[in-house]
Amino acid sequence: MRVRYAETDQMGVVYHANYLIWMEVGRVEYFRAAGIRYRDMEEHDGIRLAVVEANCRYIAPAHYDDEVIIRTSIEEANKRSVRLNYHMREAESDRKLAEGFTRHFFLSHDMRPAKLPEKYWPLFGVS
Amino acid sequence: MRVRYAETDQMGVVYHANYLIWMEVGRVEYFRAAGIRYRDMEEHDGIRLAVVEANCRYIAPAHYDDEVIIRTSIEEANKRSVRLNYHMREAESDRKLAEGFTRHFFLSHDMRPAKLPEKYWPLFGVS
Amino acid sequence: MRVRYAETDQMGVVYHANYLIWMEVGRVEYFRAAGIRYRDMEEHDGIRLAVVEANCRYIAPAHYDDEVIIRTSIEEANKRSVRLNYHMREAESDRKLAEGFTRHFFLSHDMRPAKLPEKYWPLFGVS
Amino acid sequence: MRVRYAETDQMGVVYHANYLIWMEVGRVEYFRAAGIRYRDMEEHDGIRLAVVEANCRYIAPAHYDDEVIIRTSIEEANKRSVRLNYHMREAESDRKLAEGFTRHFFLSHDMRPAKLPEKYWPLFGVS
Repeated sequence: MRVRYAETDQMGVVYHANYLIWMEVGRVEYFRAAGIRYRDMEEHDGIRLAVVEANCRYIAPAHYDDEVIIRTSIEEANKRSVRLNYHMREAESDRKLAEGFTRHFFLSHDMRPAKLPEKYWPLFGVS
Repeated sequence: MRVRYAETDQMGVVYHANYLIWMEVGRVEYFRAAGIRYRDMEEHDGIRLAVVEANCRYIAPAHYDDEVIIRTSIEEANKRSVRLNYHMREAESDRKLAEGFTRHFFLSHDMRPAKLPEKYWPLFGVS
Repeated sequence: MRVRYAETDQMGVVYHANYLIWMEVGRVEYFRAAGIRYRDMEEHDGIRLAVVEANCRYIAPAHYDDEVIIRTSIEEANKRSVRLNYHMREAESDRKLAEGFTRHFFLSHDMRPAKLPEKYWPLFGVS
Repeated sequence: MRVRYAETDQMGVVYHANYLIWMEVGRVEYFRAAGIRYRDMEEHDGIRLAVVEANCRYIAPAHYDDEVIIRTSIEEANKRSVRLNYHMREAESDRKLAEGFTRHFFLSHDMRPAKLPEKYWPLFGVS
Protein backbone atom coordinates (compact mmCIF):
# COMPACT_ATOMS: atom_id res chain seq x y z
CA MET A 1 0.00 0.00 0.00
CA ARG A 2 1.26 3.42 -0.92
CA VAL A 3 0.62 6.29 1.55
CA ARG A 4 -1.65 8.96 0.06
CA TYR A 5 -1.21 12.70 0.55
CA ALA A 6 -4.75 12.78 1.93
CA GLU A 7 -3.63 10.47 4.73
CA THR A 8 -1.01 12.86 6.13
CA ASP A 9 -1.68 15.60 8.65
CA GLN A 10 0.08 18.85 9.47
CA MET A 11 2.58 17.01 11.69
CA GLY A 12 3.95 15.74 8.36
CA VAL A 13 3.13 12.11 9.12
CA VAL A 14 0.16 9.79 8.58
CA TYR A 15 -2.85 10.70 10.73
CA HIS A 16 -3.33 7.90 13.24
CA ALA A 17 -6.95 6.98 12.40
CA ASN A 18 -5.86 5.91 8.91
CA TYR A 19 -4.05 2.87 10.31
CA LEU A 20 -7.46 1.38 11.10
CA ILE A 21 -8.39 1.78 7.44
CA TRP A 22 -5.13 0.05 6.48
CA MET A 23 -6.03 -2.82 8.81
CA GLU A 24 -9.30 -3.13 6.88
CA VAL A 25 -7.31 -3.31 3.63
CA GLY A 26 -5.05 -5.96 5.17
CA ARG A 27 -8.07 -7.94 6.36
CA VAL A 28 -9.79 -7.92 2.97
CA GLU A 29 -6.60 -8.90 1.13
CA TYR A 30 -5.98 -11.67 3.67
CA PHE A 31 -9.39 -13.11 2.78
CA ARG A 32 -8.77 -12.63 -0.94
CA ALA A 33 -5.44 -14.50 -0.69
CA ALA A 34 -7.43 -17.38 0.82
CA GLY A 35 -9.82 -17.32 -2.13
CA ILE A 36 -12.68 -15.46 -0.39
CA ARG A 37 -14.03 -12.08 -1.41
CA TYR A 38 -15.36 -10.31 1.69
CA ARG A 39 -17.77 -8.55 -0.67
CA ASP A 40 -19.32 -11.93 -1.51
CA MET A 41 -19.62 -12.82 2.17
CA GLU A 42 -21.75 -9.71 2.60
CA GLU A 43 -23.67 -9.90 -0.66
CA HIS A 44 -24.26 -13.64 -1.05
CA ASP A 45 -24.26 -14.91 2.50
CA GLY A 46 -25.42 -11.81 4.32
CA ILE A 47 -22.55 -12.19 6.79
CA ARG A 48 -20.82 -9.07 8.08
CA LEU A 49 -17.79 -8.64 10.27
CA ALA A 50 -18.82 -5.92 12.71
CA VAL A 51 -15.87 -4.38 14.53
CA VAL A 52 -16.32 -4.58 18.30
CA GLU A 53 -12.82 -3.46 19.27
CA ALA A 54 -9.88 -1.90 17.49
CA ASN A 55 -6.42 -1.23 18.90
CA CYS A 56 -3.27 0.24 17.42
CA ARG A 57 0.17 0.86 18.91
CA TYR A 58 2.18 3.38 16.92
CA ILE A 59 5.90 2.66 16.84
CA ALA A 60 7.37 4.86 14.10
CA PRO A 61 5.58 7.39 11.91
CA ALA A 62 4.67 6.59 8.30
CA HIS A 63 5.27 9.30 5.72
CA TYR A 64 3.71 10.38 2.46
CA ASP A 65 4.52 8.06 -0.47
CA ASP A 66 5.97 5.36 1.79
CA GLU A 67 5.18 1.85 0.72
CA VAL A 68 3.60 0.04 3.66
CA ILE A 69 3.46 -3.73 4.09
CA ILE A 70 0.64 -5.07 6.25
CA ARG A 71 0.95 -8.59 7.62
CA THR A 72 -2.43 -9.90 8.76
CA SER A 73 -3.10 -13.04 10.79
CA ILE A 74 -6.00 -14.62 12.63
CA GLU A 75 -5.26 -14.71 16.34
CA GLU A 76 -8.33 -16.68 17.32
CA ALA A 77 -11.76 -17.44 15.92
CA ASN A 78 -14.93 -19.30 16.72
CA LYS A 79 -18.38 -19.46 15.14
CA ARG A 80 -19.39 -16.17 16.69
CA SER A 81 -16.33 -13.95 16.59
CA VAL A 82 -12.80 -13.49 15.31
CA ARG A 83 -9.72 -11.52 16.34
CA LEU A 84 -7.13 -10.50 13.76
CA ASN A 85 -3.63 -9.13 14.32
CA TYR A 86 -1.80 -6.68 12.08
CA HIS A 87 1.86 -5.75 11.74
CA MET A 88 2.73 -2.78 9.56
CA ARG A 89 6.21 -2.11 8.17
CA GLU A 90 7.74 0.43 5.83
CA ALA A 91 8.90 -1.57 2.80
CA GLU A 92 12.18 0.15 1.93
CA SER A 93 13.71 0.31 5.41
CA ASP A 94 11.76 -2.66 6.86
CA ARG A 95 11.11 -0.36 9.83
CA LYS A 96 8.18 -1.39 12.03
CA LEU A 97 5.46 1.25 11.93
CA ALA A 98 2.65 -0.10 14.05
CA GLU A 99 0.87 -3.17 15.30
CA GLY A 100 -2.68 -3.70 16.36
CA PHE A 101 -5.71 -5.90 16.40
CA THR A 102 -9.41 -5.88 15.64
CA ARG A 103 -12.11 -8.02 17.21
CA HIS A 104 -15.29 -8.75 15.27
CA PHE A 105 -18.66 -10.39 15.74
CA PHE A 106 -20.36 -12.03 12.81
CA LEU A 107 -23.66 -10.31 12.06
CA SER A 108 -26.52 -11.29 9.80
CA HIS A 109 -27.96 -9.04 7.12
CA ASP A 110 -30.32 -7.46 9.68
CA MET A 111 -27.38 -6.66 11.98
CA ARG A 112 -28.07 -9.39 14.57
CA PRO A 113 -25.46 -11.83 15.92
CA ALA A 114 -25.03 -14.75 13.54
CA LYS A 115 -23.17 -18.02 13.30
CA LEU A 116 -20.42 -18.20 10.73
CA PRO A 117 -21.62 -20.44 7.83
CA GLU A 118 -19.74 -23.72 7.66
CA LYS A 119 -18.16 -22.96 4.29
CA TYR A 120 -16.11 -20.19 5.93
CA TRP A 121 -14.83 -22.36 8.79
CA PRO A 122 -11.57 -23.28 7.02
CA LEU A 123 -10.85 -19.61 6.26
CA PHE A 124 -11.06 -18.72 9.93
CA GLY A 125 -9.60 -21.96 11.24
CA VAL A 126 -12.83 -22.81 13.04
CA SER A 127 -13.79 -26.46 13.52
CA MET B 1 -17.68 24.28 11.76
CA ARG B 2 -14.34 23.82 13.43
CA VAL B 3 -11.45 22.43 11.34
CA ARG B 4 -10.27 19.04 12.65
CA TYR B 5 -6.65 17.94 12.84
CA ALA B 6 -7.62 14.94 10.70
CA GLU B 7 -8.61 17.34 7.92
CA THR B 8 -5.16 18.89 7.54
CA ASP B 9 -2.38 17.50 5.36
CA GLN B 10 1.39 17.83 5.46
CA MET B 11 1.22 21.17 3.62
CA GLY B 12 -0.16 22.46 6.95
CA VAL B 13 -3.55 23.36 5.49
CA VAL B 14 -6.88 21.59 4.98
CA TYR B 15 -6.72 18.82 2.36
CA HIS B 16 -8.83 19.93 -0.57
CA ALA B 17 -11.23 16.97 -0.74
CA ASN B 18 -12.57 17.88 2.71
CA TYR B 19 -14.30 20.98 1.33
CA LEU B 20 -16.75 18.65 -0.43
CA ILE B 21 -17.58 17.12 2.95
CA TRP B 22 -18.10 20.62 4.35
CA MET B 23 -20.49 21.37 1.49
CA GLU B 24 -22.46 18.29 2.55
CA VAL B 25 -22.59 19.67 6.11
CA GLY B 26 -23.76 23.04 4.73
CA ARG B 27 -26.42 21.33 2.62
CA VAL B 28 -27.83 19.28 5.48
CA GLU B 29 -27.88 22.27 7.84
CA TYR B 30 -29.56 24.37 5.13
CA PHE B 31 -32.36 21.79 4.99
CA ARG B 32 -32.54 21.58 8.77
CA ALA B 33 -32.88 25.39 9.04
CA ALA B 34 -35.88 25.06 6.70
CA GLY B 35 -37.40 22.44 9.00
CA ILE B 36 -36.44 19.37 6.96
CA ARG B 37 -34.17 16.58 8.13
CA TYR B 38 -32.39 15.12 5.11
CA ARG B 39 -32.27 11.86 7.10
CA ASP B 40 -36.08 11.77 7.05
CA MET B 41 -36.15 12.41 3.30
CA GLU B 42 -34.07 9.28 2.86
CA GLU B 43 -35.72 7.12 5.52
CA HIS B 44 -39.38 8.10 5.21
CA ASP B 45 -39.71 9.18 1.61
CA GLY B 46 -36.95 7.11 0.04
CA ILE B 47 -35.64 10.21 -1.73
CA ARG B 48 -31.89 10.63 -2.12
CA LEU B 49 -29.84 13.49 -3.47
CA ALA B 50 -27.25 11.80 -5.65
CA VAL B 51 -24.32 14.06 -6.50
CA VAL B 52 -23.81 14.29 -10.27
CA GLU B 53 -21.26 17.10 -10.23
CA ALA B 54 -19.15 18.83 -7.62
CA ASN B 55 -16.91 21.84 -8.08
CA CYS B 56 -14.72 23.83 -5.72
CA ARG B 57 -12.50 26.86 -6.28
CA TYR B 58 -9.93 27.31 -3.53
CA ILE B 59 -9.17 30.94 -2.71
CA ALA B 60 -7.27 30.94 0.60
CA PRO B 61 -6.20 27.94 2.67
CA ALA B 62 -8.09 26.94 5.82
CA HIS B 63 -6.03 25.94 8.84
CA TYR B 64 -6.41 23.61 11.76
CA ASP B 65 -8.83 24.87 14.44
CA ASP B 66 -10.19 27.64 12.17
CA GLU B 67 -13.88 28.26 12.52
CA VAL B 68 -15.42 28.04 9.06
CA ILE B 69 -18.76 29.57 8.05
CA ILE B 70 -20.53 27.90 5.14
CA ARG B 71 -23.26 29.88 3.36
CA THR B 72 -25.47 27.56 1.30
CA SER B 73 -28.06 28.58 -1.27
CA ILE B 74 -30.17 26.92 -3.95
CA GLU B 75 -29.11 28.16 -7.34
CA GLU B 76 -31.83 26.38 -9.29
CA ALA B 77 -34.13 23.43 -8.84
CA ASN B 78 -36.83 21.48 -10.60
CA LYS B 79 -38.66 18.21 -9.89
CA ARG B 80 -35.74 16.17 -11.13
CA SER B 81 -32.60 17.96 -10.01
CA VAL B 82 -31.13 20.74 -7.89
CA ARG B 83 -27.97 22.82 -7.90
CA LEU B 84 -26.64 24.33 -4.68
CA ASN B 85 -23.96 26.98 -4.21
CA TYR B 86 -21.58 27.27 -1.27
CA HIS B 87 -19.43 30.11 0.04
CA MET B 88 -16.93 29.31 2.76
CA ARG B 89 -15.31 31.94 4.99
CA GLU B 90 -12.98 31.88 7.98
CA ALA B 91 -15.03 33.33 10.84
CA GLU B 92 -12.45 35.41 12.70
CA SER B 93 -10.93 37.23 9.73
CA ASP B 94 -13.98 36.96 7.44
CA ARG B 95 -11.49 35.83 4.79
CA LYS B 96 -13.03 33.98 1.85
CA LEU B 97 -11.73 30.42 1.70
CA ALA B 98 -13.54 28.79 -1.19
CA GLU B 99 -16.67 28.66 -3.25
CA GLY B 100 -18.27 25.86 -5.14
CA PHE B 101 -21.38 24.08 -6.22
CA THR B 102 -22.95 20.63 -6.31
CA ARG B 103 -25.54 19.34 -8.76
CA HIS B 104 -27.86 16.53 -7.74
CA PHE B 105 -30.51 14.26 -9.20
CA PHE B 106 -33.30 12.98 -7.01
CA LEU B 107 -33.18 9.20 -6.77
CA SER B 108 -35.67 6.72 -5.39
CA HIS B 109 -34.82 4.10 -2.81
CA ASP B 110 -33.73 1.69 -5.59
CA MET B 111 -31.37 4.34 -7.02
CA ARG B 112 -33.48 5.24 -10.07
CA PRO B 113 -34.36 8.80 -11.13
CA ALA B 114 -37.34 10.05 -9.17
CA LYS B 115 -39.62 13.06 -8.99
CA LEU B 116 -39.31 15.22 -5.91
CA PRO B 117 -42.44 14.64 -3.74
CA GLU B 118 -44.71 17.69 -3.64
CA LYS B 119 -44.20 18.29 0.08
CA TYR B 120 -40.56 19.22 -0.61
CA TRP B 121 -41.35 21.69 -3.40
CA PRO B 122 -41.34 24.73 -1.10
CA LEU B 123 -37.95 23.74 0.36
CA PHE B 124 -36.40 23.71 -3.09
CA GLY B 125 -38.44 26.60 -4.51
CA VAL B 126 -40.02 24.30 -7.10
CA SER B 127 -43.54 25.05 -8.30
CA MET C 1 -21.09 16.52 17.30
CA ARG C 2 -23.38 15.69 14.43
CA VAL C 3 -22.63 12.54 12.37
CA ARG C 4 -21.79 13.38 8.76
CA TYR C 5 -22.95 11.40 5.74
CA ALA C 6 -19.29 11.03 4.80
CA GLU C 7 -18.70 9.16 8.06
CA THR C 8 -21.15 6.33 7.28
CA ASP C 9 -20.32 3.18 5.32
CA GLN C 10 -22.40 0.75 3.33
CA MET C 11 -23.38 -1.14 6.49
CA GLY C 12 -25.50 1.99 7.16
CA VAL C 13 -23.59 2.92 10.30
CA VAL C 14 -20.56 5.04 11.12
CA TYR C 15 -17.30 3.54 9.85
CA HIS C 16 -15.26 2.51 12.88
CA ALA C 17 -12.09 4.51 12.15
CA ASN C 18 -14.06 7.76 12.49
CA TYR C 19 -14.42 7.26 16.25
CA LEU C 20 -10.69 7.98 16.55
CA ILE C 21 -11.29 11.31 14.81
CA TRP C 22 -14.14 12.03 17.23
CA MET C 23 -11.77 11.30 20.13
CA GLU C 24 -9.46 13.94 18.68
CA VAL C 25 -12.37 16.40 18.62
CA GLY C 26 -13.19 15.51 22.23
CA ARG C 27 -9.54 15.97 23.25
CA VAL C 28 -9.23 19.39 21.63
CA GLU C 29 -12.52 20.61 23.10
CA TYR C 30 -11.48 19.29 26.53
CA PHE C 31 -8.37 21.48 26.31
CA ARG C 32 -10.41 24.45 25.03
CA ALA C 33 -12.84 24.13 27.95
CA ALA C 34 -9.78 24.40 30.24
CA GLY C 35 -8.71 27.60 28.46
CA ILE C 36 -5.98 26.04 26.30
CA ARG C 37 -5.96 25.96 22.51
CA TYR C 38 -4.10 22.86 21.36
CA ARG C 39 -3.23 24.88 18.25
CA ASP C 40 -1.30 27.33 20.45
CA MET C 41 0.53 24.49 22.17
CA GLU C 42 1.83 23.41 18.77
CA GLU C 43 2.44 26.86 17.30
CA HIS C 44 3.75 28.82 20.30
CA ASP C 45 5.34 26.15 22.44
CA GLY C 46 6.29 23.61 19.81
CA ILE C 47 4.67 20.85 21.89
CA ARG C 48 2.82 18.06 20.11
CA LEU C 49 0.78 15.19 21.46
CA ALA C 50 1.91 12.23 19.39
CA VAL C 51 -0.48 9.28 19.60
CA VAL C 52 1.34 6.11 20.71
CA GLU C 53 -1.74 3.97 21.26
CA ALA C 54 -5.42 4.20 20.44
CA ASN C 55 -8.18 1.84 21.49
CA CYS C 56 -11.92 1.79 20.91
CA ARG C 57 -14.60 -0.65 22.02
CA TYR C 58 -17.78 -0.36 19.94
CA ILE C 59 -20.97 -0.95 21.90
CA ALA C 60 -23.82 0.27 19.68
CA PRO C 61 -23.62 1.68 16.15
CA ALA C 62 -23.92 5.43 15.51
CA HIS C 63 -26.05 6.51 12.57
CA TYR C 64 -26.10 9.37 10.13
CA ASP C 65 -27.30 12.67 11.63
CA ASP C 66 -27.11 11.35 15.21
CA GLU C 67 -25.92 13.88 17.73
CA VAL C 68 -23.00 12.35 19.60
CA ILE C 69 -21.78 13.48 23.01
CA ILE C 70 -18.14 12.79 23.80
CA ARG C 71 -17.04 12.87 27.43
CA THR C 72 -13.26 13.21 27.71
CA SER C 73 -11.16 12.79 30.83
CA ILE C 74 -7.50 12.48 31.71
CA GLU C 75 -6.78 9.05 33.12
CA GLU C 76 -3.18 9.72 34.03
CA ALA C 77 -0.41 12.11 33.07
CA ASN C 78 3.18 12.91 33.80
CA LYS C 79 5.76 15.24 32.24
CA ARG C 80 6.41 12.82 29.39
CA SER C 81 3.06 11.29 28.52
CA VAL C 82 -0.69 11.37 29.02
CA ARG C 83 -3.57 8.94 28.69
CA LEU C 84 -7.08 10.15 27.98
CA ASN C 85 -10.37 8.26 28.20
CA TYR C 86 -13.44 8.85 26.04
CA HIS C 87 -17.08 7.88 26.44
CA MET C 88 -19.39 8.44 23.49
CA ARG C 89 -23.19 8.53 23.75
CA GLU C 90 -26.04 9.25 21.36
CA ALA C 91 -27.67 12.42 22.68
CA GLU C 92 -31.36 11.73 22.11
CA SER C 93 -31.51 8.20 23.51
CA ASP C 94 -28.52 8.52 25.85
CA ARG C 95 -27.43 5.18 24.42
CA LYS C 96 -23.74 4.33 24.93
CA LEU C 97 -21.99 4.07 21.57
CA ALA C 98 -18.36 3.42 22.37
CA GLU C 99 -15.56 3.95 24.81
CA GLY C 100 -11.86 4.12 24.30
CA PHE C 101 -8.55 5.67 25.16
CA THR C 102 -5.51 7.28 23.59
CA ARG C 103 -1.97 7.39 24.96
CA HIS C 104 0.36 10.18 23.90
CA PHE C 105 3.97 11.24 24.28
CA PHE C 106 4.86 14.92 24.27
CA LEU C 107 7.11 15.73 21.34
CA SER C 108 9.12 18.82 20.53
CA HIS C 109 8.89 20.70 17.24
CA ASP C 110 11.54 18.38 15.75
CA MET C 111 9.53 15.29 16.76
CA ARG C 112 11.79 14.23 19.66
CA PRO C 113 10.50 13.33 23.15
CA ALA C 114 9.98 16.48 25.20
CA LYS C 115 9.04 17.51 28.70
CA LEU C 116 5.67 19.17 29.11
CA PRO C 117 6.26 22.91 29.84
CA GLU C 118 5.35 23.87 33.40
CA LYS C 119 2.53 26.18 32.31
CA TYR C 120 0.58 23.15 31.09
CA TRP C 121 1.00 21.12 34.28
CA PRO C 122 -2.34 22.25 35.77
CA LEU C 123 -4.19 21.32 32.56
CA PHE C 124 -2.90 17.75 32.76
CA GLY C 125 -2.93 17.50 36.55
CA VAL C 126 0.84 17.03 36.63
CA SER C 127 2.77 18.28 39.66
CA MET D 1 -6.98 1.03 -7.27
CA ARG D 2 -9.25 -1.11 -5.15
CA VAL D 3 -12.26 0.58 -3.47
CA ARG D 4 -12.02 0.43 0.32
CA TYR D 5 -14.93 -0.20 2.67
CA ALA D 6 -14.09 3.10 4.36
CA GLU D 7 -14.79 4.88 1.07
CA THR D 8 -18.42 3.77 0.85
CA ASP D 9 -21.36 5.55 2.45
CA GLN D 10 -24.79 4.39 3.54
CA MET D 11 -26.12 4.77 -0.01
CA GLY D 12 -24.00 1.66 -0.68
CA VAL D 13 -21.71 3.46 -3.13
CA VAL D 14 -18.46 5.40 -2.90
CA TYR D 15 -18.86 8.77 -1.17
CA HIS D 16 -18.30 11.46 -3.76
CA ALA D 17 -15.46 13.36 -2.04
CA ASN D 18 -13.24 10.28 -2.34
CA TYR D 19 -12.97 10.71 -6.10
CA LEU D 20 -10.82 13.80 -5.44
CA ILE D 21 -8.48 11.62 -3.41
CA TRP D 22 -8.36 9.13 -6.28
CA MET D 23 -7.45 11.98 -8.64
CA GLU D 24 -4.52 12.73 -6.32
CA VAL D 25 -3.45 9.09 -6.56
CA GLY D 26 -3.75 9.28 -10.36
CA ARG D 27 -1.69 12.48 -10.42
CA VAL D 28 1.11 11.09 -8.29
CA GLU D 29 1.29 7.85 -10.28
CA TYR D 30 1.29 9.85 -13.54
CA PHE D 31 4.38 11.67 -12.28
CA ARG D 32 5.97 8.43 -11.08
CA ALA D 33 5.41 6.81 -14.50
CA ALA D 34 7.35 9.77 -15.96
CA GLY D 35 10.21 9.13 -13.55
CA ILE D 36 9.39 11.90 -11.05
CA ARG D 37 8.44 11.38 -7.43
CA TYR D 38 6.12 14.18 -6.35
CA ARG D 39 7.54 13.65 -2.86
CA ASP D 40 10.99 14.69 -4.18
CA MET D 41 9.53 17.78 -5.85
CA GLU D 42 8.29 18.89 -2.44
CA GLU D 43 11.28 17.76 -0.38
CA HIS D 44 14.22 18.56 -2.66
CA ASP D 45 12.93 21.43 -4.77
CA GLY D 46 10.42 22.94 -2.38
CA ILE D 47 7.81 22.96 -5.16
CA ARG D 48 4.20 22.20 -4.28
CA LEU D 49 1.16 21.78 -6.48
CA ALA D 50 -1.55 23.73 -4.66
CA VAL D 51 -5.05 22.86 -5.85
CA VAL D 52 -6.94 25.98 -6.97
CA GLU D 53 -9.91 24.22 -8.53
CA ALA D 54 -11.30 20.70 -8.54
CA ASN D 55 -14.23 19.37 -10.53
CA CYS D 56 -15.84 15.97 -10.83
CA ARG D 57 -18.80 14.73 -12.87
CA TYR D 58 -20.21 11.47 -11.55
CA ILE D 59 -21.50 9.13 -14.26
CA ALA D 60 -22.01 5.75 -12.60
CA PRO D 61 -21.48 4.82 -8.95
CA ALA D 62 -18.40 2.89 -7.84
CA HIS D 63 -18.91 0.09 -5.32
CA TYR D 64 -16.93 -1.53 -2.57
CA ASP D 65 -14.09 -3.77 -3.80
CA ASP D 66 -14.39 -2.51 -7.40
CA GLU D 67 -11.09 -2.13 -9.17
CA VAL D 68 -10.90 1.41 -10.53
CA ILE D 69 -8.65 2.52 -13.37
CA ILE D 70 -7.70 6.21 -13.40
CA ARG D 71 -6.38 7.69 -16.63
CA THR D 72 -4.57 10.96 -15.98
CA SER D 73 -3.43 13.50 -18.57
CA ILE D 74 -2.09 17.03 -18.62
CA GLU D 75 -4.59 19.30 -20.33
CA GLU D 76 -2.40 22.39 -20.29
CA ALA D 77 0.57 23.73 -18.38
CA ASN D 78 2.84 26.73 -18.14
CA LYS D 79 5.55 27.81 -15.72
CA ARG D 80 2.98 28.99 -13.17
CA SER D 81 0.14 26.51 -13.34
CA VAL D 82 -1.11 23.20 -14.66
CA ARG D 83 -4.46 21.60 -15.35
CA LEU D 84 -4.88 17.82 -15.28
CA ASN D 85 -7.78 15.70 -16.51
CA TYR D 86 -8.93 12.39 -15.07
CA HIS D 87 -11.09 9.59 -16.42
CA MET D 88 -12.15 6.86 -14.03
CA ARG D 89 -13.44 3.45 -15.12
CA GLU D 90 -14.45 0.26 -13.38
CA ALA D 91 -11.93 -2.35 -14.55
CA GLU D 92 -14.08 -5.45 -14.94
CA SER D 93 -16.99 -3.90 -16.86
CA ASP D 94 -15.02 -1.00 -18.37
CA ARG D 95 -17.93 1.16 -17.25
CA LYS D 96 -17.14 4.89 -17.02
CA LEU D 97 -17.48 6.08 -13.42
CA ALA D 98 -16.50 9.72 -13.48
CA GLU D 99 -14.39 12.37 -15.09
CA GLY D 100 -12.95 15.54 -13.72
CA PHE D 101 -10.09 17.98 -13.59
CA THR D 102 -7.86 19.79 -11.13
CA ARG D 103 -6.10 23.11 -11.63
CA HIS D 104 -2.94 23.88 -9.67
CA PHE D 105 -0.53 26.72 -9.05
CA PHE D 106 3.10 25.97 -8.30
CA LEU D 107 4.02 27.21 -4.84
CA SER D 108 7.38 27.58 -3.16
CA HIS D 109 8.22 26.11 0.24
CA ASP D 110 6.83 29.26 1.95
CA MET D 111 3.53 28.88 0.06
CA ARG D 112 4.08 31.77 -2.39
CA PRO D 113 3.59 31.52 -6.17
CA ALA D 114 6.67 30.04 -7.78
CA LYS D 115 8.03 29.28 -11.23
CA LEU D 116 8.33 25.64 -12.15
CA PRO D 117 12.07 24.71 -12.16
CA GLU D 118 13.38 24.01 -15.65
CA LYS D 119 14.12 20.36 -14.91
CA TYR D 120 10.38 19.70 -14.60
CA TRP D 121 9.46 21.40 -17.91
CA PRO D 122 9.52 18.16 -19.93
CA LEU D 123 7.27 16.41 -17.40
CA PHE D 124 4.61 19.08 -17.82
CA GLY D 125 5.24 19.72 -21.50
CA VAL D 126 6.27 23.32 -20.80
CA SER D 127 8.83 24.97 -23.08
